[in-house]
Amino acid sequence: MLHFNPTPASVPPPNNPLAFILRAAQIYPDKVALVHTDVEYPVTYTFSVWAQRIQNLAYALIRAGVKPGDRVGVIAPNCPLIADAHYGIMAARAVITPINTRLKPTEVTYIIEHSQCCFLLVDHEYQNLVQDVNVPFVVSKDTGRSGDPYEDFLNSGREFSNERGWPGLDPEVDENAPAVLCYTSGTTGRPKGVVTTLRGSYLAAVANAFEGRMNHDSTYLWILPMFHAAGWTFPWTNVFSFAKQVTLRTVNYTQIWNHFRHSGVTHYCAAPTIGIVNDPQASKLPHQITAIIAGAAPTAHLIAELQKIGINPVHVYGLTSTYGPFTRNYAQPSWENLPLDQRARLMARQGHAFATADVARVVFASPEGDLNAPLVDVPRDGKTVGEIVTRGNIVMKEYFRDPDATKKAFAGGSFHTGDLAVMHPDGSIAIMDRSKDIIISGGENASSLAIEQELSSHPHVLEVSVVARSHVKWGERPMAFVVLHPQHVATWRGRHHLFEKDLKAHARSRLPGFACPEWVEIVPELPKTSTGKIQKLELRKIVAKL
Amino acid sequence: MLHFNPTPASVPPPNNPLAFILRAAQIYPDKVALVHTDVEYPVTYTFSVWAQRIQNLAYALIRAGVKPGDRVGVIAPNCPLIADAHYGIMAARAVITPINTRLKPTEVTYIIEHSQCCFLLVDHEYQNLVQDVNVPFVVSKDTGRSGDPYEDFLNSGREFSNERGWPGLDPEVDENAPAVLCYTSGTTGRPKGVVTTLRGSYLAAVANAFEGRMNHDSTYLWILPMFHAAGWTFPWTNVFSFAKQVTLRTVNYTQIWNHFRHSGVTHYCAAPTIGIVNDPQASKLPHQITAIIAGAAPTAHLIAELQKIGINPVHVYGLTSTYGPFTRNYAQPSWENLPLDQRARLMARQGHAFATADVARVVFASPEGDLNAPLVDVPRDGKTVGEIVTRGNIVMKEYFRDPDATKKAFAGGSFHTGDLAVMHPDGSIAIMDRSKDIIISGGENASSLAIEQELSSHPHVLEVSVVARSHVKWGERPMAFVVLHPQHVATWRGRHHLFEKDLKAHARSRLPGFACPEWVEIVPELPKTSTGKIQKLELRKIVAKL
Repeated sequence: MLHFNPTPASVPPPNNPLAFILRAAQIYPDKVALVHTDVEYPVTYTFSVWAQRIQNLAYALIRAGVKPGDRVGVIAPNCPLIADAHYGIMAARAVITPINTRLKPTEVTYIIEHSQCCFLLVDHEYQNLVQDVNVPFVVSKDTGRSGDPYEDFLNSGREFSNERGWPGLDPEVDENAPAVLCYTSGTTGRPKGVVTTLRGSYLAAVANAFEGRMNHDSTYLWILPMFHAAGWTFPWTNVFSFAKQVTLRTVNYTQIWNHFRHSGVTHYCAAPTIGIVNDPQASKLPHQITAIIAGAAPTAHLIAELQKIGINPVHVYGLTSTYGPFTRNYAQPSWENLPLDQRARLMARQGHAFATADVARVVFASPEGDLNAPLVDVPRDGKTVGEIVTRGNIVMKEYFRDPDATKKAFAGGSFHTGDLAVMHPDGSIAIMDRSKDIIISGGENASSLAIEQELSSHPHVLEVSVVARSHVKWGERPMAFVVLHPQHVATWRGRHHLFEKDLKAHARSRLPGFACPEWVEIVPELPKTSTGKIQKLELRKIVAKL
Repeated sequence: MLHFNPTPASVPPPNNPLAFILRAAQIYPDKVALVHTDVEYPVTYTFSVWAQRIQNLAYALIRAGVKPGDRVGVIAPNCPLIADAHYGIMAARAVITPINTRLKPTEVTYIIEHSQCCFLLVDHEYQNLVQDVNVPFVVSKDTGRSGDPYEDFLNSGREFSNERGWPGLDPEVDENAPAVLCYTSGTTGRPKGVVTTLRGSYLAAVANAFEGRMNHDSTYLWILPMFHAAGWTFPWTNVFSFAKQVTLRTVNYTQIWNHFRHSGVTHYCAAPTIGIVNDPQASKLPHQITAIIAGAAPTAHLIAELQKIGINPVHVYGLTSTYGPFTRNYAQPSWENLPLDQRARLMARQGHAFATADVARVVFASPEGDLNAPLVDVPRDGKTVGEIVTRGNIVMKEYFRDPDATKKAFAGGSFHTGDLAVMHPDGSIAIMDRSKDIIISGGENASSLAIEQELSSHPHVLEVSVVARSHVKWGERPMAFVVLHPQHVATWRGRHHLFEKDLKAHARSRLPGFACPEWVEIVPELPKTSTGKIQKLELRKIVAKL
């Protein structure tokens, strides 16, 4: 393997995340950058070797006809291919389009057609997703060995690499050029393509490194899929920090705990990690791990369990359109002496906009159809519900090929998240619900999130999700789906009606009448998306049939 | 004091360091931001109270006639006034012009006239510097109490503050607008005015926070004067990190050690801090402190002494034109097992460009007068001397009212530092000298820095500085001025000629003949600038008379 030798002319102008891998390869050429183990042939790449692979990939793409601004699709689990792609596609000045591996072939076809991808990088396990697609692609067998079509593809770039090196790659000069095109799962209608920029990716990555206190000594374990909102910019955050990354094809608790214990893992991102701490292998860690958690607020129970084993939760909030996280719950010194229950309630808030992000506001709904109406903030009373909006560095550029949706999303000059929240007197935001998750019970707006927060404080509740169920008298009433804590499954076996009574009494002591669940159903597990979010849509389907 | 309540409309667009104080006041309103103790009336400001003072200052300046883009001069030691000024002047969309308090009145007058300052903020101790200046000014008695003219001035802004709040301040929308105008001390000719931008200050501040591993738990002690290159952007770095700042009017070892021990200090910046570690009060610290050191490379002796007492040196390099530091010595894991001498030699290198900075290159001199000649990198051989150049985020915008000097400084498209260096095979740079510090001995170029580095490895040498002295046969020969380590002063008392012999033998074993000092002079101390840099000009004056 050639030793990587970037020349000054090869370093892109500000602010382009490609600079991170060039810096890392210059400053720590022999430091381990990437480890991939749950395969037949595990691989370990240093920063210099990895940078060389990235350069080869860029030239291979160019040889394959990829032009600046073109979209290149990637369908892969967490593995070197998709880590490479986050830099190699950028180095070819193309736009990476990560595709969710859990989608159906028709959905994948739609995304490839809508994004007009001209080339695809596909992991062998997901080759079936592109069988009917009329776009050239390369398959990776994830072996890292010659004979693997992806490795041969990298080799096809080597000739140019040797001749022209980094200077030949002619870096993008416009920091507002598109970097990533990421399709949101779209609970209603067709998925939308979120376009983010080089500058935004750079600044979000730096912010995540700072907020996570990542550095040269960090080891990041990939649990969050990299295809999800470009891994919340962590493919760049990790390299900016000179951290080691560990990729896992499959999120498997045995492997996670093995890496926690033996690979010096210090950081991971995930949707609430209830599964990790409730795994039978969970026990006190020899060192502190920072868990960057989004998707839903950590419950009191989860916080207690995490702290018991040495995991420090950092609660963040964001969307694909905001490069993943853009707010953070900033723990206050005054919380330290509060009872856990109260502390959990405060830690559950989405908090404030984080480093390099502009403020997160909560605003009243504008008159329907008026895209220029000035936005009016709700009072800081912790009660008045409005929509979270933001703007600035950590907000997408546009929806791809959808100017109308873009205009609507930026009504009044700020990006509309679609999430409903209140603003507390301390300026922190707290999500009440996606608008569709509000339960209109007896004319009152009941937040399913607020109800879940209270129900989850019952010591026997592991997970809970609440949706609206129609009710003759009240219009709607909350129905709770509960997963019991493993320790208490036996307690209530054959006596679910007694647990229902117990939980309802718990609710009545904490919630207004209209927000108390009318029905409680114990289930073995909750339906979840590939990224760990509870699928309320599936619960609503169940409720609709009752 | 009003509780500070920034509104979303008050937060400036990206990237403006003013955002840092607004965020800090929102997220940690009651956390201590600023402590000032070495005065009759010590003060402590929380982020919310401080932000309110900053808002008052901005309105007071506007009421006093300051317009966007105007320059406002500040003459003060490290104290709340100059900390306020780094935000308040920005909030009024004016440009802060910090003035070195050690200058003569005529020099101050020149800067005020050249910068066309329209208003001045002056600490009482330096009022004499502006006696002959025809520009309105406000004097601070540094009491923080009503009756102090500066406090009364702040109060004059309060009425507007109450009426209009932050939204009334109408933040700057162009991130490339000037932020600071800082005059370099100018060893030859008139001082030059370095103009830096909001964007550059923002990104340099973030980089310094990341490189220094600063965070919410940090406490920064001001030893570096804030007027020096805008305190290397630390007035913004500290607030971005939510760190506590401690200001000292006078750099006094007793106070420094007192704060090290009792104020939880975790960070400071300084020119080599030999004085701090050699102070009789120096002893093992109860916690680790990070010292960000520039101005000259830390010697083996200094590194050993620092580590002994628990100070972790971070060696950085930069200029006023690069917002202070823009390169850093990145310690490699492989250095850990090297003997101290060898490690010190590696740690003395200026290293690589740091986070958010573009690469630091070393290039051959271009043909005289050709401003468009492409820059050619020296080979990475650790031998060929060239000039350090850079570009990108962490480089000044221009020299104020001096387009010719600006063009010359940016010849070939990169900023020329005027520092001569080599590039090592690992891509790290090592300064050999300012061009004028090279000693031409027998036709060979001897680097005074390289000689100093070797001489300082003699165990009895505390500090050493080497300059050229004319020589009948060789043209020039090195002359060394040495400060002995306090423990060894007695050893050589009355026997300086023997020490000279000993040091020369030490040099001969490590340096080529032409680089060995021809003369050695023991002195009680070396002449230094207000910022701790050794004044070779003064040594040359002594040599000229020999």
